[in-house]
Amino acid sequence: MDQFNDVDAVHRLLEVADELRNRKTTTNILSGKVVALAFLEPSTRTSCSFSAAAQRLGAGVISMNAQDSSVTKGETLADSMLCLASYADAIVLRHPRLGAAKEAAAAVSKPVINAGDGTGEHPTQALLDLYAIVHETQSRGKTFSESEKLNVTFLGDAKNGRTIHSLSKLLARVMAGKVVFRYVTPAAVDLRMPAELIEKLKAAGVEQTEHNEMSDDIIKATDVLYVTRVQKERFSDAASYEEAMKASFRVTAEVASKMKSDAIIMHPLPRVDEISTDVDSDPRCAYFKQMENGMYVRMALLATVLGALE
Amino acid sequence: MDQFNDVDAVHRLLEVADELRNRKTTTNILSGKVVALAFLEPSTRTSCSFSAAAQRLGAGVISMNAQDSSVTKGETLADSMLCLASYADAIVLRHPRLGAAKEAAAAVSKPVINAGDGTGEHPTQALLDLYAIVHETQSRGKTFSESEKLNVTFLGDAKNGRTIHSLSKLLARVMAGKVVFRYVTPAAVDLRMPAELIEKLKAAGVEQTEHNEMSDDIIKATDVLYVTRVQKERFSDAASYEEAMKASFRVTAEVASKMKSDAIIMHPLPRVDEISTDVDSDPRCAYFKQMENGMYVRMALLATVLGALE
Amino acid sequence: MDQFNDVDAVHRLLEVADELRNRKTTTNILSGKVVALAFLEPSTRTSCSFSAAAQRLGAGVISMNAQDSSVTKGETLADSMLCLASYADAIVLRHPRLGAAKEAAAAVSKPVINAGDGTGEHPTQALLDLYAIVHETQSRGKTFSESEKLNVTFLGDAKNGRTIHSLSKLLARVMAGKVVFRYVTPAAVDLRMPAELIEKLKAAGVEQTEHNEMSDDIIKATDVLYVTRVQKERFSDAASYEEAMKASFRVTAEVASKMKSDAIIMHPLPRVDEISTDVDSDPRCAYFKQMENGMYVRMALLATVLGALE
Repeated sequence: MDQFNDVDAVHRLLEVADELRNRKTTTNILSGKVVALAFLEPSTRTSCSFSAAAQRLGAGVISMNAQDSSVTKGETLADSMLCLASYADAIVLRHPRLGAAKEAAAAVSKPVINAGDGTGEHPTQALLDLYAIVHETQSRGKTFSESEKLNVTFLGDAKNGRTIHSLSKLLARVMAGKVVFRYVTPAAVDLRMPAELIEKLKAAGVEQTEHNEMSDDIIKATDVLYVTRVQKERFSDAASYEEAMKASFRVTAEVASKMKSDAIIMHPLPRVDEISTDVDSDPRCAYFKQMENGMYVRMALLATVLGALE
Repeated sequence: MDQFNDVDAVHRLLEVADELRNRKTTTNILSGKVVALAFLEPSTRTSCSFSAAAQRLGAGVISMNAQDSSVTKGETLADSMLCLASYADAIVLRHPRLGAAKEAAAAVSKPVINAGDGTGEHPTQALLDLYAIVHETQSRGKTFSESEKLNVTFLGDAKNGRTIHSLSKLLARVMAGKVVFRYVTPAAVDLRMPAELIEKLKAAGVEQTEHNEMSDDIIKATDVLYVTRVQKERFSDAASYEEAMKASFRVTAEVASKMKSDAIIMHPLPRVDEISTDVDSDPRCAYFKQMENGMYVRMALLATVLGALE
Repeated sequence: MDQFNDVDAVHRLLEVADELRNRKTTTNILSGKVVALAFLEPSTRTSCSFSAAAQRLGAGVISMNAQDSSVTKGETLADSMLCLASYADAIVLRHPRLGAAKEAAAAVSKPVINAGDGTGEHPTQALLDLYAIVHETQSRGKTFSESEKLNVTFLGDAKNGRTIHSLSKLLARVMAGKVVFRYVTPAAVDLRMPAELIEKLKAAGVEQTEHNEMSDDIIKATDVLYVTRVQKERFSDAASYEEAMKASFRVTAEVASKMKSDAIIMHPLPRVDEISTDVDSDPRCAYFKQMENGMYVRMALLATVLGALE
């Protein structure tokens, strides 16, 4: 996965995703291969996405989860990974502990794809978010430059949102100098972007501002509205949660209609009510395509790490 | 699925099932496709049948169940279906709530196959039951007409038996005027066929009679004996359950031997003791073939809805 | 499975495993086939191994586990097997009850592979252990004869170790007169090899000795060190367990270094701490290859029982 710290590698990956998406006929480039899905923390959506990706390329899939006997018998993560690596050609790991992916990658000689580890990264989500942004803005005929920057508004919980952290860093790397980030988080509780991350992004040349309300100015300036869920549990009581949500953190068809006609609305899903369903039919709705894109990015990722494109 | 309300479509489907069954060589007509199994109510038998059907045609399979995080996080059925539809080419849905299949089909643009929803329909079970009846009676050289009708006896629980409701309606449609239904249900508790369904079938031209005992006359007249489980819990006490079962609702080799030599005995399975195992070797036993037939019907269904036959 | 009581059949199987291992290109000899994994007792490692094996040969996989509704509804093992046999071409069964595999095989006409039943056999583990021994000793240029015997030391729990029982019997059959077995088990508790099994092996011409300590003489004489886990629960208290382990039942890099340079160390895995991780990089470490070999043996097994090699 570390190979995707390189901007060129990211671009090549998105190109492969595009190719796989456009291909009309079946491709069995991973026929005879097996991908292991080690979801030691449940995440059906991500696991389904990887499973579909692997199988669409002709690979088989084996699964291990947290209830699995060997893990509960006291087997180390390294040994579990060595086991899967002896059956499979690549491992996709989701783990509750920060650093688990790196540990797993060190233990085995087969490629390990990090599908999220603790409060750490969720790099494939960031890659698919990036792909969705590139794909959707290009298909709307938009391009971005240092004079005409991409305005990304992160709405909701910027503190705990692993996807926001991963995506912001990836965007900073790939579109250095061409992005502006706005963080809109509730005033009643602290869900602000971590200060050290803001510093890091600033150092990378990203212009950033923080807000407590989704003002009309922000709405109109936004090219990409990235919505995340604000969990009720973060608030002291239901009333203050409800008040915060009503004020600013629920995207409705009315809000969407005020946005640029070529803006896009994203969400890592699942949503509860932070985006109302009447937005689903708005042309700015990109969250379902984002999910489908995820599968193509994961196909590209699997094909790349398994050397099937050479 | 609604397409199978059309009698011609049903016949074409059974023909495809026949073809797939007789084919000696492998067919990969669904290669590169992915089928999502969304079993939000457990049903291993049906899910295994669909999974085998999909894979025999070369498709991949992804699974979502009721424990899945997004559903428990408060995601709507529509959103869950949109998620699966972004990864898969068709969705097979089993759901505890009546109407869920229709709701799912309305939410997504990919085909949704209803694998049972609440007290509603279980249409693929009805199709496979029909296929088993057609296949098994034909292979015994039997044909049916308005003067020589097919005598179907439903034995057991006609009130709660979703499979009986679905099959009776389908038979009425496909063999209008050529079927006679007999319902044999225990006297001690009300497990009778719902009155409104009897009315409906009558209107469709089906001759029907109700009974509390499996008399020799019924046994001898029957072409198809469709047995369902009578649950102990329906009775006030174990003794009255046992009495009812002993009297009439347990099919033994002795009962089977009194039937026409070309009659068939069916059961949606699993059985407990309503058919004793000594019937398994009787040439009239059709319940295991019925299960295998189910897979061919589901292969035909998947191939049809995915447009693989065109 | 009974066919593998024949020594020639075992040798042919290992040859097929070798062939499949060495094959560079994909083989889809099981394309269009379906293998059912009925793991009525959980065992992720074995189930993943079979699943990967089936899929690498192009077969599909369906799964049934102990929580499955029909089993809990009171369905008999025979009926469950008949159900799977109507969807799949072969069944792999893991069951907590001794004799379940034989019962299952009697119920259906499709091949049933015993993946372990209760305190009974675990024949595929024995086959893969044998394959690992043959493969690893041959690749080290070793051959065995009646004058130069293979010295196998079983370390740990010889009483409850199903794998030790199966492997010892298989080795006795396949390498009759060319093997010596040493059993090293703790003195504090009774984990000795069952007396009747020792008798049986003696009758088959195997030279055997029992020990309570892993002396230097044994260490130096050993060609194959087969380590198993000694469970803490077998001891009256933690201290006596710890004492026993420290004394003799924990294989460290230091122990390994005293062994013949061409000896091998095996373990059915998962391990806890009976082999320290510093042994993993020792050239004598064969336990991870043993696991990978398992997959090739299972591929050979599936290909054989499904007649794909004819």
